[in-house]
Parts: sequence; structure tokens; C-alpha cells
Amino acid sequence: MNNPRYQRVAIVGAGLIGGSLALALRERKLAASVVAVSRSARSAANLCRLKIVDEATEDLRRGVEGADVVVICSPVSSIASTAIQAASWLAPNALLTDAGSTKQGLVEKISSGLAVLPQPPLFVGSHPLAGGHQTGPEFAQADLFEGAVTVITPTTATQTRAIEAAAAFWQAVGCRIEQMTPKQHDELLAYASHLPHIAAAAVAGVTPTEALPLTATGWGDTTRVAAGSPSLWRDILMANRKSVADGLLALETDLKKYREALNAGDAEAIEKLLEQGRQRRDALGG
Amino acid sequence: MNNPRYQRVAIVGAGLIGGSLALALRERKLAASVVAVSRSARSAANLCRLKIVDEATEDLRRGVEGADVVVICSPVSSIASTAIQAASWLAPNALLTDAGSTKQGLVEKISSGLAVLPQPPLFVGSHPLAGGHQTGPEFAQADLFEGAVTVITPTTATQTRAIEAAAAFWQAVGCRIEQMTPKQHDELLAYASHLPHIAAAAVAGVTPTEALPLTATGWGDTTRVAAGSPSLWRDILMANRKSVADGLLALETDLKKYREALNAGDAEAIEKLLEQGRQRRDALGG
Repeated sequence: MNNPRYQRVAIVGAGLIGGSLALALRERKLAASVVAVSRSARSAANLCRLKIVDEATEDLRRGVEGADVVVICSPVSSIASTAIQAASWLAPNALLTDAGSTKQGLVEKISSGLAVLPQPPLFVGSHPLAGGHQTGPEFAQADLFEGAVTVITPTTATQTRAIEAAAAFWQAVGCRIEQMTPKQHDELLAYASHLPHIAAAAVAGVTPTEALPLTATGWGDTTRVAAGSPSLWRDILMANRKSVADGLLALETDLKKYREALNAGDAEAIEKLLEQGRQRRDALGG
Repeated sequence: MNNPRYQRVAIVGAGLIGGSLALALRERKLAASVVAVSRSARSAANLCRLKIVDEATEDLRRGVEGADVVVICSPVSSIASTAIQAASWLAPNALLTDAGSTKQGLVEKISSGLAVLPQPPLFVGSHPLAGGHQTGPEFAQADLFEGAVTVITPTTATQTRAIEAAAAFWQAVGCRIEQMTPKQHDELLAYASHLPHIAAAAVAGVTPTEALPLTATGWGDTTRVAAGSPSLWRDILMANRKSVADGLLALETDLKKYREALNAGDAEAIEKLLEQGRQRRDALGG
């Protein structure tokens, strides 16, 4: 390998996202070595068996020491503590970032933790908007990030070098970059991801078992994400409580408008509501 | 063609469903002639150009006279009047059915209309659970019904011969048959189809424009059906007002539970709710 961009990239938590990131780095020959830090010796062995990384360890220090880039891809609930721990073993010019689906709480916690270090690494929060309904490294794909958006969430305290390093890293695996504050990220993600997840789970949850044999593509599409891990999503929703609750209230209010229009026999109101949904949907396409 | 099962099958309203039905009948060589009845000369010409039917006309009487089977596939709002009109030109052993997404109101209206005819055809309501987000005969597929469920909705007044003829017809194009009363159909379809449609439209409708660039597969899947025609769906929802309003209330109540749990910081309650959705979703698969 001639002059790869990075000597050592450490990925902490190589599930679907982390595993795909490792594959993308290796396929694009971006790193001399891609190392995974796993929760257990068994999952580390599994990652080597799947040929997703060059090296895997359950020892955080051994995994991250000497890395140019460390990406924490573990579940939202453990990102902050892992990042703070990892930071103490990193060089001041190393990039530390994460792939968490919520940002405000995480970035605050990590920033506070890093502030007490004598020579903290460069840090900025990231959120690659990629994934699927399956979890685990078995479903990792080298092209998962191609054309996907990664949101980078600096604060006023973030160093420009950290932003530049993170943008360059995610662009190298195929992402487009959006930049906004952690707060703005969480407010928008409540609508872009967290609210659809709850709506999917709620539609599935209220469907009587007898109705399941009568479902077709509509029910299947609308409820698909409800197959996601309840414990992972519990943590994501809890980490963005305020914005998600605001979004839920807006959704309930909209559903109530449909219900009142149906009860009143107001076909015109129903069509207007449906038209509003279609326009927003069509703005995206796909 | 040696002894096709039907001499003449007339499809009134050859959009996605009617067009696919025509293609399936022709591909499976089930009818000596498949004729479409269209709203306009232009759409009749289009169907002939697309080679979807053997014959197309805008004249209902000319299209259905002499048919063994007539299937009304037009939008829900026009099915009953078209069916009653067509019935007066059919032989008593001809099968008249429809493909409407709601059944109770339609079946009542059609049954009343047929009751005054001296020699009404065999009639039973049908609902093939097939379709997609696109509409129009351009998207018709010969295999749309393969493995799909068609619900047949007899009442206590329906002749056994009508049920048998409709079941044989839909099975011939690849469907599995479920049989239930029109009322039961509508109650279950409220959950299997109508509620997911409103949820999709509402999630799309409340999403701020600024959040659209941050959406990924989750938002895309959950809102997909919101791209459907607002006027067609207005009529479907209005025709099943009572059951859909009941379903909406259940959905709002569930969403409120999520909101209250988020506001209370009750992670355990959130996980329980998500788990309930996942279990129902997993019962289906796909």
C-alpha cells in the first residue's frame, strides 16, 4: 500500500455502521491498518473471521493507542464514556469522532470530559446518515456511505482543524458533509428519523393480529423500521427526549385533524391533509 | 387458444390493478377476450397501444355485454354506480365483482341496486390486496397478483355460486383467498392499510422542509405510501370513516404514551412500547 492517508484508524464498536466503515476504509486503501475495538474476545474474533478489519481487540487502550483517527460507533448510551476514556490515550493531533444518532447530550458530555485533559485530541461529533434495519457486522457493506450525508456538529468551542479533519475523513469514504450545531441536528433528526421510528412502531403496535394477513406493501413499508432494536432505539429516543416529544405532539395534532375530519364527514379537509403529506414526500422522491 | 376458461372478461377502469389483471388473464390464457372499459377514448386507445387488453371502449354497455366476468376496478367513489349500471346488461350466470379497497358501503349499495333487477348477475365484493405507490396502466404487471391475498366479502344474502365463481377467478390469476363479511374486512383494513397511509402522510406532513436533507431510509420507508393519490385515498378513507377514526384514536393514544414516557424520562416504558411494535412487525417478516 503506497502512502495511505492514515496509518491507523480505530473503530470502537464494529456493528453495521462501524463494520461498513472498516470495509470502506480498507476497500479504498485509506489506512495502513484498520483496527476494531469490540466488547468481547468472541466478537473481536468474529470481525477477524469476517475479514472486516486488520486487527481486533477487546482492549480499548491497545486498540486506540497510536491511531490517527478514532471513531466511536457503539450504541448511543456508551459513546460518551468510551470517547472520554479513549481520548486520554490519543495524540493531540489525532481525530476523535463518533457516529451517534443524537448529538447535543453526547457532544456536551464528551467536551466536558476532554476539557480536563492536558492535551486532548481533536474532537467533533459526527452522524453518518446511513444504516438499515439489520444490525451487526454480518450486514456491513463497503459502499454504505457512498452518497450518504454525514452531519458534523461543531460547537463554538470546536477547533477548525477538528472540523476539517472530520469532513476529510467522512468524505474519503464517500459521504457528503452537512454542518450544523448539535442542537439543530437533534431538532431536525427528531423529524427525519426518530419520529418516523415511533410512528412505525406505533402503527405496528396497534395493528390487531387478525389484520396481519391482510397487510400488503403499504403496511410493510410504513412499519419496516419498527423491526429495529428496541434497546438501541430506547437510548436514541431518550437522548433526544425534548425534540422527539415536541415532534410527537405535532404528529398527534395532525392525526387528530384527520380524525375530526373523518368524524365530520369532511372529505375536502381529508384531501388537503393528504395533499400536504404528499407534497412533503414528493419533495424528497424515491 | 384452446378452451380458455372465460370467453370474455371485462375490466372497468384499467389502471394499475385493472391493467395488471388484464395482463395476468392474457398471460395465463384465461380468456378468449379481455376488454377494458375506460373513461375516455384517449385512455382506451392508450390501453390498446400498451397491448394490455384485446379490446378497449369507453362505452360501458358495449364493454360488458356478453361478458362471463366483469370486474369493476375504478376508484372507490364510482364503483357502486358503475356496477349497478353494468349489472343490467349481464346474464344471470355472469360474475360481477370489484376491486375496491373498502367493502361495507359498496356491497350494501350494489346489493340494493341489484335487488330490483329481474335477473341480476352473480355478485360478491372482492378486494385484491395488491398494488403499489404508482398508479396507471403503465405500471401494470402480469405477476402483481401472484401470492397476493384477495379478500372476498359475501353477506348472508350472497349466493354460494357467486362466492365460488369469484374465488376461482382470483385464484386463476394467482391469488390466495380470504373470506369475511364486508364489515370485518373494513375493520381490519383500517389497520392493515388505511391507518398506515394516514400515519405516512402525517409523518411526511409534519416534517419541516429543513429536515428533508437529513432523512435516510427510515423516513423514506415510513412515508412511502404518502406519495399515493390524495383524491383516491380521500375516497377510501371516507368510505371507511368509522373504522379509520377508531384506529386513529388508538394510534393517537399509543403516541401519547410514548410522549408521556419521554417527558417523564421513563426509558423502560419506551422500550416496552418499542418492543410491542417490533413483535407485531416481526410476526409478519419482510
